[in-house]
Amino acid sequence: MNTICAIATPAGLGATAMIRISGPEAFGIAGMLFPEKSDFAGWEPNRAKFASLYDFSDGERNLVDQVVVTKFAAPHSFTGEDVVEISCHGSVYIQQQIIALLIANGCRMAAPGEFTQRAFLNGKLDLPQAEAIADLIEAQSETAHHAAMKQLQGELSDKMAVLREELLQMASLLELELDFSEEEVEFADRTKLLSLLAHIKDEVNRLLQSYKWGTMLKNGIPVAIVGEPNVGKSTLLNALLQRERAIVSDIPGTTRDTIEDTFLLDGTLFRFIDTAGIRESGDTIERIGIERAYDTIRKAAVILWITDARKNSQEIELELSKITDSIKSDDKKIILIGNKSDLLSDPSKRIEKAIYISAKKGENLDLVLDEINSFVKENHIQDITLLTSERHQALLSGILAAIERTESGLRNGLPTDLVAEDIRMALHDLGELTGTISSEDILNNIFGKFCIGK
Amino acid sequence: MNTICAIATPAGLGATAMIRISGPEAFGIAGMLFPEKSDFAGWEPNRAKFASLYDFSDGERNLVDQVVVTKFAAPHSFTGEDVVEISCHGSVYIQQQIIALLIANGCRMAAPGEFTQRAFLNGKLDLPQAEAIADLIEAQSETAHHAAMKQLQGELSDKMAVLREELLQMASLLELELDFSEEEVEFADRTKLLSLLAHIKDEVNRLLQSYKWGTMLKNGIPVAIVGEPNVGKSTLLNALLQRERAIVSDIPGTTRDTIEDTFLLDGTLFRFIDTAGIRESGDTIERIGIERAYDTIRKAAVILWITDARKNSQEIELELSKITDSIKSDDKKIILIGNKSDLLSDPSKRIEKAIYISAKKGENLDLVLDEINSFVKENHIQDITLLTSERHQALLSGILAAIERTESGLRNGLPTDLVAEDIRMALHDLGELTGTISSEDILNNIFGKFCIGK
Repeated sequence: MNTICAIATPAGLGATAMIRISGPEAFGIAGMLFPEKSDFAGWEPNRAKFASLYDFSDGERNLVDQVVVTKFAAPHSFTGEDVVEISCHGSVYIQQQIIALLIANGCRMAAPGEFTQRAFLNGKLDLPQAEAIADLIEAQSETAHHAAMKQLQGELSDKMAVLREELLQMASLLELELDFSEEEVEFADRTKLLSLLAHIKDEVNRLLQSYKWGTMLKNGIPVAIVGEPNVGKSTLLNALLQRERAIVSDIPGTTRDTIEDTFLLDGTLFRFIDTAGIRESGDTIERIGIERAYDTIRKAAVILWITDARKNSQEIELELSKITDSIKSDDKKIILIGNKSDLLSDPSKRIEKAIYISAKKGENLDLVLDEINSFVKENHIQDITLLTSERHQALLSGILAAIERTESGLRNGLPTDLVAEDIRMALHDLGELTGTISSEDILNNIFGKFCIGK
Repeated sequence: MNTICAIATPAGLGATAMIRISGPEAFGIAGMLFPEKSDFAGWEPNRAKFASLYDFSDGERNLVDQVVVTKFAAPHSFTGEDVVEISCHGSVYIQQQIIALLIANGCRMAAPGEFTQRAFLNGKLDLPQAEAIADLIEAQSETAHHAAMKQLQGELSDKMAVLREELLQMASLLELELDFSEEEVEFADRTKLLSLLAHIKDEVNRLLQSYKWGTMLKNGIPVAIVGEPNVGKSTLLNALLQRERAIVSDIPGTTRDTIEDTFLLDGTLFRFIDTAGIRESGDTIERIGIERAYDTIRKAAVILWITDARKNSQEIELELSKITDSIKSDDKKIILIGNKSDLLSDPSKRIEKAIYISAKKGENLDLVLDEINSFVKENHIQDITLLTSERHQALLSGILAAIERTESGLRNGLPTDLVAEDIRMALHDLGELTGTISSEDILNNIFGKFCIGK
């Protein structure tokens, strides 16, 4: 195993920077930068030590920097190897110089994610936990951070351990039958097996369904702003974003493209998407815009349906039933908004299901934001285990398929060895997910997406 | 004194980031982020401790990050105060979150350079050393780094201490006379005083002269590429920079602007400046370019005078004498270059003072670079104490003026109290330079240029 080094702090100039070294020769190589190498060897691990770092090449002794050095002795380090962390002045020249000296003394530049990969290989973390570190670093909102932190703490790993236990139990029951296959006896009670399978399937399905939340939390929960032309959709978007993002005009059909912007609301990232007004249109370009609006509706989690507050209750009710018919989805939240309430003289004409606002005057926008925000709470996103990785989603889909094959195999009286094979495939995929089964390809693919120095 | 906090690592996303807290309440405030506040109080200083950092606001307990915390107890810290350093995951969200929690618990966001300013106020560094930290962080080359490091180690401060000692000696001799002024006796031997003054003046002059080197090392040593039109100046610049930087053509007078680029050569930053060809010209724009070329020559430290290798030795000698006449400066290095040597069929026609190259074919460029580089060694820039700050230069100029006034006062038999006043002014300026005399304005001006977190 090589000894690796990298700058672990963000690139560029700052007050301080940190360089990390990990591997069997970490102490030996780092020690060469300090006078009296034997001194360095004697420094106590975990103790921050102020020291002068020198370039001893060419037989000279040139002071490179005054640094703080901390040694971490294997296995009590992030990677599980011997680790040295050098905090230097945040000069780009000094950072490069120290890296150059470490490489001259035998270090190799770390590949992206290689420190975390070593932590994984040394059993400090399983694969979902290692992947959570990349998510944690990239998290832009409280909810995304919360999800990554739960995964880093092992919430998903624990669920996978339970799943594995259950699948192993199934497998062992079936394997037992195989051992006595000559006798054509069914040891495993089929009803019990099917009930266990149903339970496993439920759990996998729940996780797979959470993937949609997981990706939404990462990329922003899509909120579509839709409605007939000229009801004030772009004005509302601008008012919500508190800046001019969409071109606003009172000519119906002004917005043809979909316009997006993200917005942090009470710790959750939302992605607002303004759309073209929906109406029958002869204009080709506008028609494309309208088609896109329908597409946006399909992909959105929250729909702000804007209507004109001056419409009568029957018209609004009719419009609402049209939307709900066309969407046909239980997990979308539809918020009906009566805009231009400043132009509605008689408040008694309001219908109960709608929020009345004036986007132009900024009236009642808080009610809209509260309603959008309640979506997160209503779905208990904070409390459920979220699948946030495409890799996990793909593997769990494979596991689900294998379980469904097992189920139908049992129901149709398939030979036990064929049924057992499906369970083994599910266990294999589960092993890939947690990292007990891994190949260089899988690891390169996962850790290659990390930043260098992690 | 407030307790301050800041992100000390470069801005943005990275594997890890470091947050620094300093002040009397550092331990108390940081402790609030960890469970069992009393535990935190018991953690041993200088020991890197792996810990979970929580947000305890709203009576809840939300895990923000798993971090490494190191306490440094006053006065054994960078600032001389109690300091806590928190190494967290390099997520922008986490960095901001920790800062927000620290501020909610009573920290104030640090002003630029405020940590270093506190180190200065607590006597950990004098002012030139504190200023050297900003230089060190910004150093782009080995020589600039070397100069900043020497200043940080106190080389300039030591010289100032000697100067102060000598000025104090002068002052005390003169003050003694003042005490006995009634008796009209000269205690201080005038010859001895004048000789001491001459010595001080020498030293101050030497430092003042080094300022030009100091700024050159920071900004790049200016190397002017000059010569008659169409001798291949831009081709040489491109060849030296090993990329196309100037527009090259064989029409004389192509380069009208001066074109600059920096270049790291053996650890020193050089700034190459290509100029318009120098000749009599009727073209107004070209004439402006030629004027600029002369201006560049005046400001340059190294002049590459390019001539056509095919000229005969007399022509070249004549050209050379013209340059040296027009420059009239001992401290500029003039390198005579015969370009287009590939077109010179007879090598015996070469003159000894010139380097013959072919910029087009990349021949003998190394000889030019060696010659440029030797400039640093010839001037022993690495070995002398360099003045690199405009502030130091201005104060030392003031000191020099006061010393010259003292000198002329002594020579002209001015009353001792007037002479002593000049010495006191010099001592005051010296105190401002080292920071024994400082005002809020001076400090704000110096530390305001630092980055936040330093």
